[in-house]
Amino acid sequence: MTLVREAWLGYRPRRDLGGSGFGREILIRGTGAELETARRELSSGLERMLGARRARTVPTPQKDGFVYVATAKSLEDAGGPLKRDDALGPEDYRVVPWTLAGRRGLLVVGGEAVGALYGAFALLRALSLGEDPNTLDLRGRPGNPLRMLNHWDNLDGSIERGYAGRSIFFRNGRVLPPGRRIREYARLIASVGVNAVAINNVNVHREETQLLVGSRLAAVARLADVLRRYGIRLYLSVNFAAPIELGGLGTADPLDAEVAAWWKARTAEIYDLIPDFGGFVVKADSEFRPGPHVYGRTHADGANMLADALAGHGGRVIWRAFVYNCLTDWRDRKLDRAKAAYENFTPLDGRFRDNVAVQIKNGPMDFQVREPASPLFGALKATNQMLEVQITQEYTGQQRHLFYWVPTWKAVLDFDTHALGEGSLVADVVSGARFDRPWGGMAGVANIGDSPAWTGHPLAQANLYGFGRLAWDPELSARRIAEEWARLSLGSDPDVVRTVVDMLMASPNIYERYTAPLGVGWMVNPGHHYGPNVDGYEYSKWGTYHFADREGIGVDRTMRTGTGYTAQYHEPIRSLYESLETCPDELLLFFHHVPYLYRLRSGKTVLQHVYDTHFQGAEQAEELLQAWNRLGGLISDDWHGPVRERLEEQAAHAKEWRDVINTYFYRRTGTPDAGGRTIHS
Amino acid sequence: MTLVREAWLGYRPRRDLGGSGFGREILIRGTGAELETARRELSSGLERMLGARRARTVPTPQKDGFVYVATAKSLEDAGGPLKRDDALGPEDYRVVPWTLAGRRGLLVVGGEAVGALYGAFALLRALSLGEDPNTLDLRGRPGNPLRMLNHWDNLDGSIERGYAGRSIFFRNGRVLPPGRRIREYARLIASVGVNAVAINNVNVHREETQLLVGSRLAAVARLADVLRRYGIRLYLSVNFAAPIELGGLGTADPLDAEVAAWWKARTAEIYDLIPDFGGFVVKADSEFRPGPHVYGRTHADGANMLADALAGHGGRVIWRAFVYNCLTDWRDRKLDRAKAAYENFTPLDGRFRDNVAVQIKNGPMDFQVREPASPLFGALKATNQMLEVQITQEYTGQQRHLFYWVPTWKAVLDFDTHALGEGSLVADVVSGARFDRPWGGMAGVANIGDSPAWTGHPLAQANLYGFGRLAWDPELSARRIAEEWARLSLGSDPDVVRTVVDMLMASPNIYERYTAPLGVGWMVNPGHHYGPNVDGYEYSKWGTYHFADREGIGVDRTMRTGTGYTAQYHEPIRSLYESLETCPDELLLFFHHVPYLYRLRSGKTVLQHVYDTHFQGAEQAEELLQAWNRLGGLISDDWHGPVRERLEEQAAHAKEWRDVINTYFYRRTGTPDAGGRTIHS
Repeated sequence: MTLVREAWLGYRPRRDLGGSGFGREILIRGTGAELETARRELSSGLERMLGARRARTVPTPQKDGFVYVATAKSLEDAGGPLKRDDALGPEDYRVVPWTLAGRRGLLVVGGEAVGALYGAFALLRALSLGEDPNTLDLRGRPGNPLRMLNHWDNLDGSIERGYAGRSIFFRNGRVLPPGRRIREYARLIASVGVNAVAINNVNVHREETQLLVGSRLAAVARLADVLRRYGIRLYLSVNFAAPIELGGLGTADPLDAEVAAWWKARTAEIYDLIPDFGGFVVKADSEFRPGPHVYGRTHADGANMLADALAGHGGRVIWRAFVYNCLTDWRDRKLDRAKAAYENFTPLDGRFRDNVAVQIKNGPMDFQVREPASPLFGALKATNQMLEVQITQEYTGQQRHLFYWVPTWKAVLDFDTHALGEGSLVADVVSGARFDRPWGGMAGVANIGDSPAWTGHPLAQANLYGFGRLAWDPELSARRIAEEWARLSLGSDPDVVRTVVDMLMASPNIYERYTAPLGVGWMVNPGHHYGPNVDGYEYSKWGTYHFADREGIGVDRTMRTGTGYTAQYHEPIRSLYESLETCPDELLLFFHHVPYLYRLRSGKTVLQHVYDTHFQGAEQAEELLQAWNRLGGLISDDWHGPVRERLEEQAAHAKEWRDVINTYFYRRTGTPDAGGRTIHS
Repeated sequence: MTLVREAWLGYRPRRDLGGSGFGREILIRGTGAELETARRELSSGLERMLGARRARTVPTPQKDGFVYVATAKSLEDAGGPLKRDDALGPEDYRVVPWTLAGRRGLLVVGGEAVGALYGAFALLRALSLGEDPNTLDLRGRPGNPLRMLNHWDNLDGSIERGYAGRSIFFRNGRVLPPGRRIREYARLIASVGVNAVAINNVNVHREETQLLVGSRLAAVARLADVLRRYGIRLYLSVNFAAPIELGGLGTADPLDAEVAAWWKARTAEIYDLIPDFGGFVVKADSEFRPGPHVYGRTHADGANMLADALAGHGGRVIWRAFVYNCLTDWRDRKLDRAKAAYENFTPLDGRFRDNVAVQIKNGPMDFQVREPASPLFGALKATNQMLEVQITQEYTGQQRHLFYWVPTWKAVLDFDTHALGEGSLVADVVSGARFDRPWGGMAGVANIGDSPAWTGHPLAQANLYGFGRLAWDPELSARRIAEEWARLSLGSDPDVVRTVVDMLMASPNIYERYTAPLGVGWMVNPGHHYGPNVDGYEYSKWGTYHFADREGIGVDRTMRTGTGYTAQYHEPIRSLYESLETCPDELLLFFHHVPYLYRLRSGKTVLQHVYDTHFQGAEQAEELLQAWNRLGGLISDDWHGPVRERLEEQAAHAKEWRDVINTYFYRRTGTPDAGGRTIHS
């Protein structure tokens, strides 16, 4: 039996391979700490899958079935089979059959040691998925240079927007010493190719500012020591006002020489302790966080100053584009928060250093169930970009509802910005390929805590897995990822796999049906963002409105009569969204204000669509529970019970969503459901 | 200059008395710690008002102008002038001219030492208000036996619904040692007759449960030592599940012998350390707090068990009637939280011990701007009752808006329950007089913290002052109390007094105008309860709805078509509220659901009333600021600045309230303001 804590690394026995002789010997060639990690992973993984005996590490193969792990360079020296191939990048790998000294075995070769580790994980994954080791031919090359987790963890152990327990890094103002859980964490995320983590919240408060120095920095370095063995570089989120709050300077002006010198000195100290330190993640001039605007400087000024401090050490700056006026006046319908990132950053294109990336949320608002892709991806052409997604489920059910994020992320990656005409996908923008940038990537806000399943809801592990897999290979389909995850985590029973994959794939649409309709977003309780509150943010300062009145609902973001947001897209996207005729139903209320009785392209009125989807969504939430319950005997209790509890809560809570939204619209319109179903008055 | 921290005990110089010879000698007769307190208060107060020389304490008067402080018994022994008078109760006092040994002076006599202390404070107050000491004739007799503050303070230093800084009793899990601030606090509240305080939150969590034992209890005892000198008895709020959480028992069943023995033992320990301990305040079976219902017992069972433990020591139980289903289903319009206290407690009338009082909130909901009086006051005839009011401004502007509570409290005290026919005022019910109960009184949820002015908003001191004065004498008018407070605190300049009294008296109506209309209540942001959110609680589980739909708004609480709440009142109140024709406009939406175009008795439609009051209220909030600003040179900066800041916030925030509420109603109805004023769409 595998435990929920083991997630997708549970490695069930491969009885079919038990007597094959495969995997009894491991050979290691090359230098790099990740090679030893690869050896240990292979040794323990093969042992679990193939039987009781642990593989021996040997200098030359003694029998068939060996696994030879090497870096490209060491292999070249040793005359391995790949020397005529194209060069492997450092993180690339190949896994191929190889006959050496008359013995048949497998070669796992990485461009560097980290590539070999990825190859080892790929081999273990393939075996765990039931593939035949004798015919394997695996090639890996990351689609994104940076594949990063952003943890929003605070030193007191709390996690902003965390729904999976307390921080695994911090507790009561202290950085925890790295123990078994950190090693397990590093294995998990390295196994899906994550190569960078920022361990603290982007909202860096007083306590967390102290992570840059002293005993706290030393404790951070001990975490980095563990992560390094898994090919993961550690980043810190920093407070732009640290020179004042920590350094005692009178300013944090990025063009002030003392400020620059202060950051240089701090950076040098960090690299003394963490030679492969990744760099800084910065939320500046956003939601009351300090930044360069305080001093009349630009984001580029701020980012470049930090970048210069890091450049000599190989460090990077991840500068978040989530900048908007969070003191909006709801009375002014021309103000539009959706326009903010584009307006703030487009004028700065080309002015950031090469070791800076601007990290852009997938949509223009804030991780809603449904948003269009951010137009900023189509606007920056001479700037490194990172796509930021939320793995944690802030607005999508907080790991108490099932919501499989991967289809949403796929849709963003596949969005064609038309920045250089047709075929300018977000995936190719952020990887750096489209505009020939030195680097780029994807960052996901982690959904991990110290809960038994890591992620609260055990099925939310699929989102963590999916983030890593998709960041590594954006061409993978959401269903393929779901299938991999289900089989690795829950075993190969076809009923289980089919049911769980169907549940995951259906989940985002189900959640969308019983919550805010047609792309309008929000409608949640303020503050914690769980549960329905249709007007919860309607008159707030956060710029998040639906403008429902007696006759209609929606945000007019057109150029002709609205906020003009649609102008931020290239043609033909711009016209697609601008026109009521062509705007996709699913985003109708994001772009247009329409009467409740406006007919969608589906032929239904907006009102009847709301009623129908809400009845349907609540029913489908109930069906998720029933589908899972039918798997009762096929899944270990360790998994089944915690999932069932959450699906029960979801089914009940979906009815609450249904009734609140339906009643809200009924009270607005006085028009009953055409189907005569119960809507409370 | 007097400081805001001195509040109403600033004692400005009485230049007119400087050369009169008054108050140079003090004589003390009798026993009781409060006599020494009286001596010190008189000595320092007279010194501040009359000049530099401190009064001497002498055995017999040497000159005219002495102040002779005595208990009734010691005076009788000494042959004083009151021996033929009616007996003074322990807390009663008289202050009268007296000629002794040929010298003319003043006698301050109390029934017991605490009465003498109240007399001393009354004398100081009269002098501070400008009265002539030679013709004084003051008689004091409390209108309520118990005059109590309930602090909702937590051991970590936070205060539930506190808007005036951190706790003065607790910090970081510790009970603070009593210092200067506690003495100042005791002086302040004793000076207005408060004789009891519960120092911890009625929501007693794990940490606070520990106050009953050990070092925390010892620290509480040190607080009690200070309070005792001012005639104040200390109470603790207790966790009904303490026998389990603290005692390790398997139950907290009030009829379990072990449980009763456990409470008896704890109580005895408390009285060992605090011989005049007041007793326990209990919130049970309410908002997720444990209580006797868990064991199938009644509130009377629970309260009596505690009462029996306390009785032998002279202690009391204050049992809160704030019990309701906080998991209401908003879909069921027959459920009505307003009915809960009556339904829970009326069947138990006569079943509580004589040392128990049921503490009843002024209204049936929860400290809204406008509520009818709780019908429970008319229902209990054989039960001691306490009227609970909120001095802290949870729903009334959180000490950032000006809201003078005293008129609201007066209205409740003057409400005729008709429990025994006409003339059964709440004031006489809670004092115990109407039903000849042994005791009763008033409890106010304190608005005090460690902020410079004690109360955050300096003018909120008037509420603390007013609570004490009104609890002492429910016949005082709200204006009289405001005048006293303004003159004591801000001096006797007629412009200042008139302006401030007018501001205070106008404040509740102004606040009501720009917030929730016509008694409907709520419409605040969930959780923290500050600022407008019309639908904030509309679909919540808390039982707090307005049911606004396309045509109308309000809660139908009639017997004929609604929840039947009106049946809880005696006639003629019942019919008054039941009938749309007679229900007062100000409570219309509390009792009835009416169309937006329903005409009030004022002749206006509900909708136009909403518009008019909201425009007017916001204007008046601006006028409060302007009135205060005109006093700029006449009030010390210590007072003026902090008040101005808050009035500025209020004026701005009132506009936000105005616009949110007006737009909400406009979006509902599509009907513009008849006056053509701007309502944002």
